[in-house]
Amino acid sequence: MKFIIIGGDAAGMSAASRAKRNRPDMDVIVLEKTFDVSYSACGMPYNLADSKRSMDDLVVRQADVFRDRQKIDLRTGHLVEAIDINRKAVRGTKHDGSKFELPYDKLLLATGASPVIPKLPGFDLLGVTNMKSLDDGRIIKQFITDNKVKNVVVIGMGYIALEMCEAFRALGIEVDMIKPRSVFIPWMNDKLASAIKTEVENNNVRIYLGHSIEKIVKTEDGLKVICRNLDLSCQMVFVAVGISPNSQLAQDAGLELGPSGSISVDKTLCTSNPDIYAAGDCADAYHVVTGRKTWIPVALRANRGGWAVADNVTGVKAELQGVAGTAVFKVFDIQVARTGLGMDEAKELDFEPVEAVIESRSRAHAHPGSSSILVQMVGDRKSGRLIGVQMVGKEGVAHRINAAAVALHAGMTVDEFVQSDLAYAPPFSPVWDPMLTAANQLLKRI
Amino acid sequence: MKFIIIGGDAAGMSAASRAKRNRPDMDVIVLEKTFDVSYSACGMPYNLADSKRSMDDLVVRQADVFRDRQKIDLRTGHLVEAIDINRKAVRGTKHDGSKFELPYDKLLLATGASPVIPKLPGFDLLGVTNMKSLDDGRIIKQFITDNKVKNVVVIGMGYIALEMCEAFRALGIEVDMIKPRSVFIPWMNDKLASAIKTEVENNNVRIYLGHSIEKIVKTEDGLKVICRNLDLSCQMVFVAVGISPNSQLAQDAGLELGPSGSISVDKTLCTSNPDIYAAGDCADAYHVVTGRKTWIPVALRANRGGWAVADNVTGVKAELQGVAGTAVFKVFDIQVARTGLGMDEAKELDFEPVEAVIESRSRAHAHPGSSSILVQMVGDRKSGRLIGVQMVGKEGVAHRINAAAVALHAGMTVDEFVQSDLAYAPPFSPVWDPMLTAANQLLKRI
Repeated sequence: MKFIIIGGDAAGMSAASRAKRNRPDMDVIVLEKTFDVSYSACGMPYNLADSKRSMDDLVVRQADVFRDRQKIDLRTGHLVEAIDINRKAVRGTKHDGSKFELPYDKLLLATGASPVIPKLPGFDLLGVTNMKSLDDGRIIKQFITDNKVKNVVVIGMGYIALEMCEAFRALGIEVDMIKPRSVFIPWMNDKLASAIKTEVENNNVRIYLGHSIEKIVKTEDGLKVICRNLDLSCQMVFVAVGISPNSQLAQDAGLELGPSGSISVDKTLCTSNPDIYAAGDCADAYHVVTGRKTWIPVALRANRGGWAVADNVTGVKAELQGVAGTAVFKVFDIQVARTGLGMDEAKELDFEPVEAVIESRSRAHAHPGSSSILVQMVGDRKSGRLIGVQMVGKEGVAHRINAAAVALHAGMTVDEFVQSDLAYAPPFSPVWDPMLTAANQLLKRI
Repeated sequence: MKFIIIGGDAAGMSAASRAKRNRPDMDVIVLEKTFDVSYSACGMPYNLADSKRSMDDLVVRQADVFRDRQKIDLRTGHLVEAIDINRKAVRGTKHDGSKFELPYDKLLLATGASPVIPKLPGFDLLGVTNMKSLDDGRIIKQFITDNKVKNVVVIGMGYIALEMCEAFRALGIEVDMIKPRSVFIPWMNDKLASAIKTEVENNNVRIYLGHSIEKIVKTEDGLKVICRNLDLSCQMVFVAVGISPNSQLAQDAGLELGPSGSISVDKTLCTSNPDIYAAGDCADAYHVVTGRKTWIPVALRANRGGWAVADNVTGVKAELQGVAGTAVFKVFDIQVARTGLGMDEAKELDFEPVEAVIESRSRAHAHPGSSSILVQMVGDRKSGRLIGVQMVGKEGVAHRINAAAVALHAGMTVDEFVQSDLAYAPPFSPVWDPMLTAANQLLKRI
């Protein structure tokens, strides 16, 4: 039994390790185009912020550990270029230019996602950077050192852009953020988004909204981002306008695609071809709130997906019920978390969304060190269900969101959720947890 | 319509406020034996630790605000001594010694709980303290200042004892803790309890387990706690060996009692008499995991209970589904949280409990500042249900427990819980949240 895995990051290596654990006799081959496997991509902004640390710190497990201890046939520098579904084989090119072809019994596509790069002049210039692989991180770190970078223009305002902007500021670099849309964080409630914007601006980052970028040009002493009514000079540009799934191989092989061009999989992570699975950032998933397909590339789903595929390939039936769209990030001293649907998303689907937006505190009345927590909670008037929560605050946000995520998985109504026996002690919460305060308000409106 | 409430703390004042909001025309009378209403009792250890703060900081709302703005007939210094259920009246004594009698249409018992004081010689000496009311806190604070207290013996090792021991240490006071039982925290998994014990001892608190106390005696320069094989000298003793519900009034009136002598109520918080409700620390509740009655005195339940009673009394039907037994406290730099059942509790009931105990980290691989998180997760082999979680760690424990609490309310199986889409970002969690790591382990055993 030959199990071939394309891609050696979270989903791929999780699948390889678990397959070998489940069935030590199985022939597990991982084909990775780079020379890095199993690293914490999400840790790159924090690593960048610390000039004393090497990007290699982010490697969770060295390639040789997979090879020697786990007996995984890990082949780095192997770029797969085609899948022949009739002959059940993959073909590609090695790093040295030689070709390879390998037959498979079961195949896993764990090809990840890539940053979207606008097709505009100058985005290929030296100093115009983006970040997905560990090599991207190494390049940025080196570029900053070599060029003594003092100012950066960040294009985009998603969570990677924001995390990177914090990292640049930690290095004493001036940051301008720019994007074409006029709304700072479109998926977020205005009041919550505004609290984040204030935090970012308080850290001396200039935010330019609603500026269409025309091109980037090289200047005598760096780069210039040219917009319709605005030019921004800098030494480096960081592009983070979104990512898209690496599904070309799947598409070429005739596999069914899902939302945003991701690879469509069922709950067992099987694609439209019964011998081919997909997991991680390249694959779609069911959303537990909507029951529909969605594409939300996050690390936990990749690891969990890798395990589920390994189980299914080794004969242990595994089904993933779906994602709730839970995410958290930090920007400067603010924690931002969400799960489920926002108002706009909910309106576009079959919901009749109602929201409550409340401001509460991170600690009890009179407890020192307390700070503001903003909560937006969304319920569906038709079903009474809780369908989404967003939260912003200096502390107690990142883990608090998990209670709402579990409620979404359980399909709880707001009426049920409001009865939850949540933890209280003065250093950690008001007696009524901010989420319960939001639920109490929402209950009145729904 | 005359609604009389006995007790002006969390449950009582929540009920009074909400009843007036629901029905401004209702005659709402609160009879409180002390002169303090609506204060954060849980904040007392933290207030004590800060010699610059007054205990009065903990008052959430002054009596006059309830009277003037909310039009609640709040009568402090009114001790109720009897309920006449036939004549539907309460009788008692005012602070000035005069008697009163008041008829009611609906009555709420929100009489709270009192510290258990061992019936042993010397527990009534000056300097032998305990803490429930704001006055208790004032007395302790004053006693420490007046006597320049340098050492305290704490009897008991529950969460109030531990919080107080942190407060005493913050004031530079030497602390000896002592109790008769040989197990440090009996309801907790050994490994987790041991981590807490180490933290307490690292903060120079001496812990004496398995010492039966015989008496407390006065000495020339203070007090001496005398045990069978050990004498501990100190200037002050703090007693925190447990609390018991104030249910004497209810018992005298012939109302049905529940676990630990608490007042038995149904899901509408009604006692065995249809015109009498009970809420807060004096009342029992259903446990959402066991479906049985339990007595767990915590602040959120008191507030929630007060609201539910007000709703029911004013014609808005409200039912409380029950408690999950969620609790959190901090001792020095350690956060301790629990929800649901421990192994021993589960064994005593109809469960076949299986546990997983794991050690994980508070932040992602290679993220600076990470610390250990210990999780015990308990499932029931018969039903597959998740039935309890305990957690100990320096960060990320207090709010994380809420996800498990919600899962208990939803009656989730371990198999369902393990699929939860929990939040991940490097500063806040490993990719697999510690709770998911525990659930993954538990799933293998269950």
